Amino acid sequence: MKTVAQQMFRTCNKLFTRKTPNDVQEAHPSNIETAAQMDNIQHLTSPSQLSIVEDVREGVHHVEAVMERAHHGGGWLLSGIICINILILGCALVSGSAFNSVAITAVHRQIFLIILLLLTMLWMLVYTVFTFRKDQAVLFKDSHAGPVWLRVGLLLFGLLSFLMDIFKIATYVGYLHCDSAVKVAFPVVQAVFLLIQTYFLWIHAKDCVQLHTNFTRCGLTLTLSTNLVVWMAAVTEESIHQTEIPDLNVSASHKMYRASYGDKKCKCSHSACDTFKEACYYLYPFNIEYSLFAAAMAYVMWKNVGRLVEDHSHHIVKFHPKDVCLGPITGIFIVVAGLVTFIMYEVFILKEEGEKTNQALLIHFIMNIVIVSMMSLSTIIGCIIYRLDHREHVSEKNPTRSLDVGLLVGASMGQFIISYFTIVAVVATGARGYLNALNLSWAVLTVLQLGLQNYFIIEGLHREPFHVMQEAALHTNAHACQENTEMSLVVENSKSMYILTSSSQKLSLKRRVLKEVCAFMLLANIILWIMPAFGARPQFDHAVEIKFYKFTMWAAIVNIGLPFGIFYRMHSVASLFEVYLIS
Amino acid sequence: MKTVAQQMFRTCNKLFTRKTPNDVQEAHPSNIETAAQMDNIQHLTSPSQLSIVEDVREGVHHVEAVMERAHHGGGWLLSGIICINILILGCALVSGSAFNSVAITAVHRQIFLIILLLLTMLWMLVYTVFTFRKDQAVLFKDSHAGPVWLRVGLLLFGLLSFLMDIFKIATYVGYLHCDSAVKVAFPVVQAVFLLIQTYFLWIHAKDCVQLHTNFTRCGLTLTLSTNLVVWMAAVTEESIHQTEIPDLNVSASHKMYRASYGDKKCKCSHSACDTFKEACYYLYPFNIEYSLFAAAMAYVMWKNVGRLVEDHSHHIVKFHPKDVCLGPITGIFIVVAGLVTFIMYEVFILKEEGEKTNQALLIHFIMNIVIVSMMSLSTIIGCIIYRLDHREHVSEKNPTRSLDVGLLVGASMGQFIISYFTIVAVVATGARGYLNALNLSWAVLTVLQLGLQNYFIIEGLHREPFHVMQEAALHTNAHACQENTEMSLVVENSKSMYILTSSSQKLSLKRRVLKEVCAFMLLANIILWIMPAFGARPQFDHAVEIKFYKFTMWAAIVNIGLPFGIFYRMHSVASLFEVYLIS
Repeated sequence: MKTVAQQMFRTCNKLFTRKTPNDVQEAHPSNIETAAQMDNIQHLTSPSQLSIVEDVREGVHHVEAVMERAHHGGGWLLSGIICINILILGCALVSGSAFNSVAITAVHRQIFLIILLLLTMLWMLVYTVFTFRKDQAVLFKDSHAGPVWLRVGLLLFGLLSFLMDIFKIATYVGYLHCDSAVKVAFPVVQAVFLLIQTYFLWIHAKDCVQLHTNFTRCGLTLTLSTNLVVWMAAVTEESIHQTEIPDLNVSASHKMYRASYGDKKCKCSHSACDTFKEACYYLYPFNIEYSLFAAAMAYVMWKNVGRLVEDHSHHIVKFHPKDVCLGPITGIFIVVAGLVTFIMYEVFILKEEGEKTNQALLIHFIMNIVIVSMMSLSTIIGCIIYRLDHREHVSEKNPTRSLDVGLLVGASMGQFIISYFTIVAVVATGARGYLNALNLSWAVLTVLQLGLQNYFIIEGLHREPFHVMQEAALHTNAHACQENTEMSLVVENSKSMYILTSSSQKLSLKRRVLKEVCAFMLLANIILWIMPAFGARPQFDHAVEIKFYKFTMWAAIVNIGLPFGIFYRMHSVASLFEVYLIS
Repeated sequence: MKTVAQQMFRTCNKLFTRKTPNDVQEAHPSNIETAAQMDNIQHLTSPSQLSIVEDVREGVHHVEAVMERAHHGGGWLLSGIICINILILGCALVSGSAFNSVAITAVHRQIFLIILLLLTMLWMLVYTVFTFRKDQAVLFKDSHAGPVWLRVGLLLFGLLSFLMDIFKIATYVGYLHCDSAVKVAFPVVQAVFLLIQTYFLWIHAKDCVQLHTNFTRCGLTLTLSTNLVVWMAAVTEESIHQTEIPDLNVSASHKMYRASYGDKKCKCSHSACDTFKEACYYLYPFNIEYSLFAAAMAYVMWKNVGRLVEDHSHHIVKFHPKDVCLGPITGIFIVVAGLVTFIMYEVFILKEEGEKTNQALLIHFIMNIVIVSMMSLSTIIGCIIYRLDHREHVSEKNPTRSLDVGLLVGASMGQFIISYFTIVAVVATGARGYLNALNLSWAVLTVLQLGLQNYFIIEGLHREPFHVMQEAALHTNAHACQENTEMSLVVENSKSMYILTSSSQKLSLKRRVLKEVCAFMLLANIILWIMPAFGARPQFDHAVEIKFYKFTMWAAIVNIGLPFGIFYRMHSVASLFEVYLIS
């Protein structure tokens, strides 16, 4: 039947496209036109062929999927090529300026970035005006794209980055008499860019654009690659700044680092410079994080261009916090304890005495080991329940879920890399003492925990929700009822099933344990997010890795890995919430 | 109809799995069992419901696809986690030994590699024995996987790597009295590994394993990550070896490099050492290439585990070399000219005189610019024809093709990176002189050519083959014939169509031009493959980039990028041949 529908569709398609044989664009009509043609097919068929119409309708869905895929065509490819070119050129420029600061200075790099930022802003404005004027531009919205946590995160990090840009402007204004004006221009442009982009992504993150798809795709990859180039530049710049510290004098790194902004010969003309510089030091990780968030959202939008989303009403799953108790309580306890030790750590570290630093590290390491061990244990319990649990795997394909899983696994790489590099450094130097032992255990347990958590979340997202299963069981019986002659028996059967379902309103033990595990993991991930996001950097306060890999290399690893780790924790919280609802 | 089939299948599935309620594995039966159950469904239905059977059969295909996806489940995830862990641990070890040669020596790294190689070999032996004994292990073969060019390439590079290992063994035997025995053990294990892996991949590259899928998946990711770690180690080792050359003395790099193997205090005990070392210098790129090939094949096998391939008879497309003439002639001319200049280049470079080196570079640059410009031009012609051409995009989803496209684009990154880094270096230093101008033009044209070629190949692979379109047209008409009352008209129509088809046996102009373009591009890619694969390294003979990025960095870029570039050219040749057949 499907083939008939396809052939009919193909014929119709030829008929319609014959009108404009010279316009190649028309040969691959936009999806809206496709939908219109579908209606036409149904009008064309005579009433006597109503039975075929049913089959055609069935086929339509298939054909639509096909058209959607075929429609990717040129724009998809072109935007990919643009993205690759901008990224690699950016990479070459950034590494050029890192390895050869004579020929390519920060000014050259910043001019390149300014051009990229301006182009991206221009595109965003065009897009906004266009979608505002045309009604048909955005017919579909992907309800999964741009979830609340991502948008709120973007806003938060955007605000802090904006603050950083203000401070940077204030700092470099003090150097204007002896340094390039570009150094002031860049934060100005970036600040404007932050405002426009945050607004743009907040409003349009869910769009599935249907008109001018090629242009939109190219614009989105431009946004994506601009953010990634900004990210690369920020990571490199911070790693280089930090290398100006002599390797041996590790304990004094903070103080010396904060003073290292700006040229040494060129003196700042106002007194607040040092304060601003110190503020920038604390704010730069948020800027790195912001670029990653924006890149992720642009990528999701790019994937959604031209997609036809079924406007299915979201499964309204109610959130019953009363169902669970042990998990949240332990979780809240862990969060509070984590916050207390985190504040102690920050206070101790700021005193910058050897004795206090060690104490701070001791507290921080022990707290982290406790959290990570408990998380691993509870995840193992969760995984065992999955094994005992007979729920089916989800059958329908879901691009948003695949993307989510990809981002989750990709982001976990960051923490994986840091942990493995720590393990290698500690084991290879054979470092002794309780701090090294704790550091090693933390790293090993983190690797274990990441692996387990990834497994748990992905398995959880791919299971059929409980309530859907119950509905399906009822539905099957109802169907059997129509087709079978022994009706009474089946109806009875169905009734007993219904009673069974009702009685299971009170959660089964398995479901309850799963929910407890999810709730605990969710809270534990929150505290593991808070600690690095708000400034805990034991990686730089503990000397083993710095001595082993030299400062530049280690700073690069941490600056690349940690933002991904922070992103991972936030993403996990959102995913665990979803798993909680499904379970 | 589909939903009915699905529900029936679900019910049956429950019936079958109820037999072993405790065994969770049974809840996700292997695909073979699924097929068996499908048969059962058809037997269970009474003869009076024959019409439903048709629909069920239609649904079966859908359900099978679903089961296949669901079946991915645990093993897919677990094997992914294993792969990530091995890769990142390998990465940490390799960078540790690169940045801190005191704590982690080459010996530590080699012990790690030996363990990985032994584990992989063990798995391969188990797999081979297992599939040999059980008939059902491999029911399906993916005819697209492991194409001839990949397998022959693997064999060729495997042989040359084997030779390199023999030379390495011979070299390090001479150092046994004062160096670690592991340095001999590693090439010995690697040589055995090369034999076993090449045999394994040659025989099993097309397998779609159906039994013990989880175990097989894990084994394949082990193979994949072992090859990638070997690749990382080789790239890093060669980059470090090359840094022992003083930066300034660039022109003497070859000679000094060749003498830098082995420890300086430790003297070789036999006289052939230097010869062997020199041979190793020429052979190491093949080893890097071999690892990439093997990794690509292991990845394809991993993707194919548990896949149900329709055993459709390959479209037998005849290869008519007579159809084209201009393309192949120009191509052969280019290949011959390229070979001549390549030999001249090698001869001139080996003389190691400044004057001769410049002449060699001049010839090499001009030749490459000519080739790349001609390729860009012909690709542009090809792309224009695609625009004029009304062939539809392929509708069915094809995982092998997606993979092919992914590998093609991924591999092109290598050449992209080298070219962009060259552009940045030449532009930033503002280097003058004809050699720099030529180098810059070559890099810019290469970027252009890569983008165009990627576009051309991907578009070409996604077009419906010409002969299939003709068949489809006939088929549609035949169908219309059955359903329409005005038979005679349609039959006549169909006949006229047939005549049209026959008359188009002689190629239309568009198709012919496309074929010419493909043939020319194919041959041009061959010469662009030969030159770097057999030792042309203008990147090291020309000083600008080395001075700009420092030797370590530039050696790392070239050693990472060039093998991918070589892989890209070979892959392009194969893809262009496919495009030629489709056109």
